[in-house]
Amino acid sequence: MSLSYILADRIINSKVDVADQRIIESANSALLDTVGVTLIGSKSEATQSVIKALEAKNTADGALIYGKKLKVSMLDAAMINGTSSHALDFDDCNNTMGGHPTVPILAGLLANSESMHANGRVVIEAYTVGVETICAMAKVLNFHHYEKGWHPTTTLGIFGAVAANARLQNLDVDKTATAIAIAASMASGIKANFGTYTKPYHVGHCTRNGLLAVRMADAGLTAGSVALEGQQGFFEVYNGRGNYDPDRLLEAWGDPFEIVEPGIAVKLHPCCGSTHPAVDAAIALKREHDLQLSDIQSVLSWTHPRRLKHTDRPEVKTGFDGKFSVQYVVSRALQNGKISLSDFSDNAVNEPEIQQFLATNIRAEPHPESKPNEKNVYYAELTITTKDGRNLQKFVDAPVGRDKDHPLPENALINKFYDCCVGVLARGSEVELANKLQNFQDVSDIQHLSEFIENATIERP
Amino acid sequence: MSLSYILADRIINSKVDVADQRIIESANSALLDTVGVTLIGSKSEATQSVIKALEAKNTADGALIYGKKLKVSMLDAAMINGTSSHALDFDDCNNTMGGHPTVPILAGLLANSESMHANGRVVIEAYTVGVETICAMAKVLNFHHYEKGWHPTTTLGIFGAVAANARLQNLDVDKTATAIAIAASMASGIKANFGTYTKPYHVGHCTRNGLLAVRMADAGLTAGSVALEGQQGFFEVYNGRGNYDPDRLLEAWGDPFEIVEPGIAVKLHPCCGSTHPAVDAAIALKREHDLQLSDIQSVLSWTHPRRLKHTDRPEVKTGFDGKFSVQYVVSRALQNGKISLSDFSDNAVNEPEIQQFLATNIRAEPHPESKPNEKNVYYAELTITTKDGRNLQKFVDAPVGRDKDHPLPENALINKFYDCCVGVLARGSEVELANKLQNFQDVSDIQHLSEFIENATIERP
Repeated sequence: MSLSYILADRIINSKVDVADQRIIESANSALLDTVGVTLIGSKSEATQSVIKALEAKNTADGALIYGKKLKVSMLDAAMINGTSSHALDFDDCNNTMGGHPTVPILAGLLANSESMHANGRVVIEAYTVGVETICAMAKVLNFHHYEKGWHPTTTLGIFGAVAANARLQNLDVDKTATAIAIAASMASGIKANFGTYTKPYHVGHCTRNGLLAVRMADAGLTAGSVALEGQQGFFEVYNGRGNYDPDRLLEAWGDPFEIVEPGIAVKLHPCCGSTHPAVDAAIALKREHDLQLSDIQSVLSWTHPRRLKHTDRPEVKTGFDGKFSVQYVVSRALQNGKISLSDFSDNAVNEPEIQQFLATNIRAEPHPESKPNEKNVYYAELTITTKDGRNLQKFVDAPVGRDKDHPLPENALINKFYDCCVGVLARGSEVELANKLQNFQDVSDIQHLSEFIENATIERP
Repeated sequence: MSLSYILADRIINSKVDVADQRIIESANSALLDTVGVTLIGSKSEATQSVIKALEAKNTADGALIYGKKLKVSMLDAAMINGTSSHALDFDDCNNTMGGHPTVPILAGLLANSESMHANGRVVIEAYTVGVETICAMAKVLNFHHYEKGWHPTTTLGIFGAVAANARLQNLDVDKTATAIAIAASMASGIKANFGTYTKPYHVGHCTRNGLLAVRMADAGLTAGSVALEGQQGFFEVYNGRGNYDPDRLLEAWGDPFEIVEPGIAVKLHPCCGSTHPAVDAAIALKREHDLQLSDIQSVLSWTHPRRLKHTDRPEVKTGFDGKFSVQYVVSRALQNGKISLSDFSDNAVNEPEIQQFLATNIRAEPHPESKPNEKNVYYAELTITTKDGRNLQKFVDAPVGRDKDHPLPENALINKFYDCCVGVLARGSEVELANKLQNFQDVSDIQHLSEFIENATIERP
């Protein structure tokens, strides 16, 4: 039996216990969080460019574009909403895959569910095996895959999109194996396009193509039987000989599911995840010592060198720079006690007080006690010297929201969701929507949910 | 300046002399040939699966699906027609890229041209720089790229699709460079899916995505500036360090254009190109000695070992097997003096006379005088012993149609086109259509051409 067949069998036949509170809670949190970042992400320039390029036509029986009162074909909706969901890089993370587990799956899965009038329980099941499939592929291929330059969120994520849609449609195992093989010919996304709108587009591309692979397999397209493990198959072509381990594919499959353990890491701050522990340290110090920027003489930020590499940006000119500058976000956290979406406009980063502080009061360095190949790369340490001569220190071993040992503060998730709805949904509707999403297992028809969102959407010219 | 910018500059600003007969003739032949194989390919199961999966809606202002009286969005038309164009593996070839140069470009280019009401001359220009761009990328990456398992028709072809559409739209150089970078995140297609319908789908995927990359760049999507040569860019990620040579990118660009020299190799027989020289030898011997199958005691077919690897199929059960069996196609050529599309139905390959001949009268071997690493791998030799005791031999150094030294027989191209129109277009219309395609530089509006094809299409339930 080929690996795609064996994997397909798990995808279709694994039992997912939707009465298990751990599964329901994890899935519902991920759904709430991802719908929120998708709604606010729909205002991004990335999404606008994709909508324009697709020239998607309004179709009464189509799927909703989140953030618009417009329905388009389910494939176009998947591409557009997928792009929105990753546009702010504010969506959830998973350590096994080294990327974002929910976005490659969700936009396509919801568009498909909408057209099928699926209920919330089957979507939760499908989502659960989707994430499990991404992590199964990651066990075989990571972290060589990640370090080589592939964008695992999409090159591995597409298999999660296939899994979720195949499970949703209850596709047979043979056709699911075929869809996996088709997807092996559509996986793409390189890191050289990070830091540009093409990065979120990767997700739109991936979630659409995973859905399309399932639809094509269902419609009779044939594909190779050993497209994963074969001589010129996915593992060889994408990772190269010796750089993958097929034996790990089903290692600990569903025991428990990845969405339960290690779980889904929610981003509390709308900036690069590598800056988060330093931000958490800054927020804690500010709270404990009631600091103002004007009290501070100097800040020294230590993070893991692998994490500092792409976040050491002492000069910040655009909002986008700000998202990837540990100096900027730590300064903002010390100023306001939190990081907000509004901190990443071009105007915001150019505020004189912040620019002055960046220029003279803060510097970032690799943590002096970091070791090569250590497993935990998520820690940070902040040292603040105040003008009145105090030396304040804070070590954070992992950012808030990263895992079970670092839970989100109460209401953080819901408040993030409410923030994401501002300017997108009519005021008040976000509470009812949050309630529906937090009880996703009770949604009887995804189309009702999408109608609710459409009706709540603020009409813009 | 980044390589994508330098390449974009050539794409947009290179002079293509559309008064040059060599360019016009080569482009028009490729267009005639590719439109023909697209029309007949539209009847393939691969195309039917893609149409069904896309659920493409009829759109009055859309682009034509070849072989149907149906217009859909230009992106869907590109994907569907692209799949049709490669469905029979009967489309043209190019030695530099190790693949098919026209199909990754043409379906998207024609769909775009139709919507723009472009004329024939600008399409020829766009097509010319499209093929040149594919070959430029191939010079950097081949044949490591080919041998690793990528499908160069699509992983390199997508850059040709970008080039052609950018030139057609007269996109500026910056945006063209961006479109190249976006395409670097969409290139895909692995050889493990060869021999299945996913192979022609690769082409539909690629020609759509090249067009979409141009449209997204035009709509403001941003992308990496060093997406080709950067640290985690296309060359590194797809080929690996040390396996590419960026200095070759513009080697001999347009001097002359690839469509002129080495030119476009047209397939005379609708079967795997690796069997063609043996087929040519069989046809020649049959003609010279007026042979019937019943005259023949035994046939020994010698081809290059690299070419025999995937064409040594002594047993043939399906039409698809037949396409890749040198034993079958040589037997058919000896029986009929030609190879026809109708030879590849399941019924045809199971004809008793042919099955009997395959079982007892023909065998295939690697040519005993072949050498490792020799440049020409396109030769074949046939030895026939007749029942009346004659020993007949024929050596063919390269198949008919492969290059200028092995030109097609007079009327072979047009007869192939007519064959491809049977059952697709109303009888008689193929002559007028051929005339338009052979004078493509005089087409004033591609939409007129597509209307002509639509009107000539035989309506099927």
